[in-house]
Amino acid sequence: MGAPLPDSDLHAELTGVAQALADAARAAILPHFRTTSLEIDNKHAQGFDPVTAADRAAERAMRDILAERRPQDAILGEEFGRSAGESGLTWVLDPIDGTRGFMSGTPTWGVLIALCDASGPILGVIDQPYIGERFLGGFGQALWNGPRGGGSLRARTGAALEAAVLMSTFPEVGTPEERAAFERVASRARLTRYGCDCYAYALLAMGQVDLVIEAGLQAYDICAPIAVIEAAGGIVTDWQGQTVHEGGQVLAAATPELHAAALTHLRG
Amino acid sequence: MGAPLPDSDLHAELTGVAQALADAARAAILPHFRTTSLEIDNKHAQGFDPVTAADRAAERAMRDILAERRPQDAILGEEFGRSAGESGLTWVLDPIDGTRGFMSGTPTWGVLIALCDASGPILGVIDQPYIGERFLGGFGQALWNGPRGGGSLRARTGAALEAAVLMSTFPEVGTPEERAAFERVASRARLTRYGCDCYAYALLAMGQVDLVIEAGLQAYDICAPIAVIEAAGGIVTDWQGQTVHEGGQVLAAATPELHAAALTHLRG
Repeated sequence: MGAPLPDSDLHAELTGVAQALADAARAAILPHFRTTSLEIDNKHAQGFDPVTAADRAAERAMRDILAERRPQDAILGEEFGRSAGESGLTWVLDPIDGTRGFMSGTPTWGVLIALCDASGPILGVIDQPYIGERFLGGFGQALWNGPRGGGSLRARTGAALEAAVLMSTFPEVGTPEERAAFERVASRARLTRYGCDCYAYALLAMGQVDLVIEAGLQAYDICAPIAVIEAAGGIVTDWQGQTVHEGGQVLAAATPELHAAALTHLRG
Repeated sequence: MGAPLPDSDLHAELTGVAQALADAARAAILPHFRTTSLEIDNKHAQGFDPVTAADRAAERAMRDILAERRPQDAILGEEFGRSAGESGLTWVLDPIDGTRGFMSGTPTWGVLIALCDASGPILGVIDQPYIGERFLGGFGQALWNGPRGGGSLRARTGAALEAAVLMSTFPEVGTPEERAAFERVASRARLTRYGCDCYAYALLAMGQVDLVIEAGLQAYDICAPIAVIEAAGGIVTDWQGQTVHEGGQVLAAATPELHAAALTHLRG
């Protein structure tokens, strides 16, 4: 691959690749959104984990770009698993986060793209193809753009838990114990809203909501939100306050004070 | 006002006025969306019913248009109440349905505009200003358009309750008894999603979801969804199967079969 690039050139290259991945995923997914011919099959006969033709087409499109532009990097994708690399960097891809929302026609599912090094996520994109909205964080940038313009991402400050807006994807959250822990926080927040999948993390990075709490996430569900929220000044950990880029129980907070308050109530 | 218009001219005029109202509401609301200076005051000290500057500006803008173009019609608006008319027609306006979603930055609140005669809603618009999506039903039309194009609205057919997607705005639904009734339906549906406010009714009219069940609605929350869904072939009643354009407990269904099945379980 020639001589190593200076950091700033490498960061620009990697950011450009992330944008290209998001563009390709949009193009692959949108023809399948809100069609009645949507192919759905269940990965798990027990649960409800639909995989759509869109999901697979988008991950293939992203893998094709990476094979061309970043063959030295590893890949972890929701649909097609792990591919080895030699650069120490891994692209973590969730072509459609929120497949149930996608199936219901809602506009709050998204494409998640993260770049991780050994320490965790260093760059992330949350993209909502139908609205045409993109949230990007990493390498000193925290930006969004959408149908009405764009700007910087900045988590909001100053809200106590009693004034906070909390989001989660569905009220069951996870196990009965996880739901009870969530409800200890929710009962103290001003407002709890459900149903946004990854879009909730984008809203936190935009300064619109204060807390997102979920359980049972996979690495590909959370790596991109971590990068975007951290770039916007927020905090993302597990429910013990430890790193969560490998998945599990997620607590995302706009401020250290809210993070500490939510941790206390999650622990019971 | 001169000689009465033939029906088709009158219908075109009224549809044009409804579109103009939706355009004016969009323009009045969008400058306030996702701003940090959002003025929020509580109508009810007890509950959580925020009224924003956007809400009031949008209803004023719509009332100005009606004063100019349809002074003979009555108005019922969420913010400024009733104004008398002499035509037998009433415009029913909810400038922002889903103020909590609006405050949280989600893109699934909407502007609701309905035109009612003595029998109930005859024309309705559900508009989502941020996405730029509009759903219109009445006078033989059922249409939507959005950022990726548009088309006809048609509720989907063929889903049994066990295959149905059900939506409601929040899991509490209403009183404990209302929640229990809702959960009797939800436990039999394939998938239940929360958080969409009026957008859920638009998704039903588009054939994306099969049932919407809510309680405690006002006339201005439901008149526009009734017109849009009925124009798309769906059914909207209260939980006893009676007309619901004056508000209350709402059951919207894509088909008569789903409507009957949901009614049975709501009754217990």
